[in-house]
Amino acid sequence: MPVNLTAPAASSLLPIKGVKLGVAKAHIKKPNKKDVLVMTLDAGSTVAGVFTLNQFCAAPVTLCKTHLNGDQPIRALLVNTGNANAGTGLDGLNRAKATCDALASRLHIASQQVLPFSTGVILETLPSEKVIAGLPQAIGDLKEDNWLNAAEAIMTTDIVSKGVSRQIEIQGKTITITGISKGSGMIHPNMATMLGYIATDATIEQADLNHLVKDIADVSFNCITVDGDTSTNDSLICIATGQAGVPNLAIDSKDYVQLKVAMIDVAIVLAQAIVRDGEGATKFMTVQVEGGHTKEECRKVAYAIAHSPLIKTAFFASDPNLGRILAAIGYAGLDQLDVNRLKLYLGDVLVAENGGRATSYHEEDGVRIMKEAEILVHVDLARGGSQCTVWTCDFSYDYVKINADYRS
Amino acid sequence: MPVNLTAPAASSLLPIKGVKLGVAKAHIKKPNKKDVLVMTLDAGSTVAGVFTLNQFCAAPVTLCKTHLNGDQPIRALLVNTGNANAGTGLDGLNRAKATCDALASRLHIASQQVLPFSTGVILETLPSEKVIAGLPQAIGDLKEDNWLNAAEAIMTTDIVSKGVSRQIEIQGKTITITGISKGSGMIHPNMATMLGYIATDATIEQADLNHLVKDIADVSFNCITVDGDTSTNDSLICIATGQAGVPNLAIDSKDYVQLKVAMIDVAIVLAQAIVRDGEGATKFMTVQVEGGHTKEECRKVAYAIAHSPLIKTAFFASDPNLGRILAAIGYAGLDQLDVNRLKLYLGDVLVAENGGRATSYHEEDGVRIMKEAEILVHVDLARGGSQCTVWTCDFSYDYVKINADYRS
Repeated sequence: MPVNLTAPAASSLLPIKGVKLGVAKAHIKKPNKKDVLVMTLDAGSTVAGVFTLNQFCAAPVTLCKTHLNGDQPIRALLVNTGNANAGTGLDGLNRAKATCDALASRLHIASQQVLPFSTGVILETLPSEKVIAGLPQAIGDLKEDNWLNAAEAIMTTDIVSKGVSRQIEIQGKTITITGISKGSGMIHPNMATMLGYIATDATIEQADLNHLVKDIADVSFNCITVDGDTSTNDSLICIATGQAGVPNLAIDSKDYVQLKVAMIDVAIVLAQAIVRDGEGATKFMTVQVEGGHTKEECRKVAYAIAHSPLIKTAFFASDPNLGRILAAIGYAGLDQLDVNRLKLYLGDVLVAENGGRATSYHEEDGVRIMKEAEILVHVDLARGGSQCTVWTCDFSYDYVKINADYRS
Repeated sequence: MPVNLTAPAASSLLPIKGVKLGVAKAHIKKPNKKDVLVMTLDAGSTVAGVFTLNQFCAAPVTLCKTHLNGDQPIRALLVNTGNANAGTGLDGLNRAKATCDALASRLHIASQQVLPFSTGVILETLPSEKVIAGLPQAIGDLKEDNWLNAAEAIMTTDIVSKGVSRQIEIQGKTITITGISKGSGMIHPNMATMLGYIATDATIEQADLNHLVKDIADVSFNCITVDGDTSTNDSLICIATGQAGVPNLAIDSKDYVQLKVAMIDVAIVLAQAIVRDGEGATKFMTVQVEGGHTKEECRKVAYAIAHSPLIKTAFFASDPNLGRILAAIGYAGLDQLDVNRLKLYLGDVLVAENGGRATSYHEEDGVRIMKEAEILVHVDLARGGSQCTVWTCDFSYDYVKINADYRS
């Protein structure tokens, strides 16, 4: 069951002026599941994205990058679940294009103005004819107040839909930010089998938005891991419709920073929701590593801990088998690590120092903290001023069950 | 259940002249389990070892390295299970020393002539008094024909004991090689929670043996992974007693190569046995990657596949969800990988080429091969002449169960 996560109420997901959403049941993999989402963006919107670094990236990812780099503004997004259209070669690219063509034709825009996204099983042919057949239903459903339906339409192994809204005041006007995401397994830094869409009615110039989407990903979606697998299809898209009536904000102005913080807040909620709904997750762990020479070495230690199946199964069992964490720190690959200087805390309890168990540590304290649903693992490397934070979940029977049965 | 692996018959493990073994039940963690092993080596034996690269290495590993680098020949080995004596700081080092002192005193040798080994739970104090109290029993049990008992005494989560012997003829004399190993979880390249001991009655000079043990490890124990965790205690020790009556062989002579091949054969059987008995394993996978620019990039791809929980759970389920393998190749981190050139085979079936599913591939063929207990995953990167092979197992409910319950 998801860890401290429930689906958002429809009323909590606020419309963004200039963004309409419509869903359809196109029977791509399962009958009676919303599996196609169309989003349309009013003219004047800016759009930017970051994508998986997997070299076997999916056909829609390739097309998205081409279309975003083209000279025509993006006016629509098309998402399907049930098939990832990855590992599908030239045929996959042609099928992704065909879906863009079909949507563009119905919306009277150019095919290059559509961004396509797919998520689901890899190495199988996208039934593009089913996606296309679902378009009239999705287009008929287009409306601004439709974010919860959209969040539901992009779910795959997700147990709950994921979405959040924030509002801030800038120059006396209300700015709204709404985001949705999906993802549950194959979750790794540098994007995951995850899709994220964050829209705002603020005005953000294209060049600024290109930077902003990277900054947002770095402190949110790039800080989560469920199983260490980087997907072929990960995409985070930021949209700014500029319809709130606030002019473009100078980058690094106080107002811009306020907007950026609010968008990051939305992104972190969406990213953490993916971990909370991680396949088979029963616990949510925050791994905080400080005192490194560089952020990179803090990340190495944090991910060694967050990826270790031995540590994740011990958390599942609420067993403070904390030597496994020391072992992970030891094999993280840091040069000249002095294990006698570092400190390991579980919550606020000092577990290890001077190369071994802290004399003040009592197993009861470890057991108490391991039983909680949200656990902080805190490492102080005590050799520098850098730090990083990573979010992950435990590893349970259900992880195996979900992934063993995924295609059945 | 272990994959195509049963415990060796006592008669199949041949004595090595000059090596005596004795075991004891010292009640370190569990009553009524053989948990202490003493090995004594006749004067004139050479000994070399390779150890974990984990920077949180255990106290006995530190002592082993010191003693091997000392000026006195090694005459005894002391192994305990039930406690790893890792993450135990200065106190752990003192306790490891105390066990060496006690054994040395009883055997009338110097403490520096003893190599200590521990395996079991990390971050807990070694009950060295129990180990020491068990010594008389182990010493009373010392005999050359006692390898199976020794293999059983070093087991932890292992289901079956692991050992093998080989004999070769050199210069008209019979040379015998016998090895035992233990290990099941926390198994990773660069050694694992594994202990391996390989002894021969051949004569191998110290300097040659120092190289040989590294060469052997590189093509055996450094090619296996169960869960990607590198342990704090991994050790492989090679012993040459020189009692077969064959003089020292010139390195790279035909006879030396024959000896080396036989010792590698023993090491590979022992290393694969660890994977076959991997925690929860139901399948044994050989991941063969060829056509890389360097061996290192072949290893990156092989380990990306062998470590992926998504791939390992799909193998558990006999589900040819082979896109997950393409995804792993894609995120292995190779520069300028042309996914359209590489080929993926399952057994002898071509699965993917030209960036997608092979037109000749039929799901039935994938299903048929996935149902087998031993599966070959073969990737041709088609960009160079290097290759490598890695052995791993699948990821089952029982892996989670074993590791969630490990300390209970």
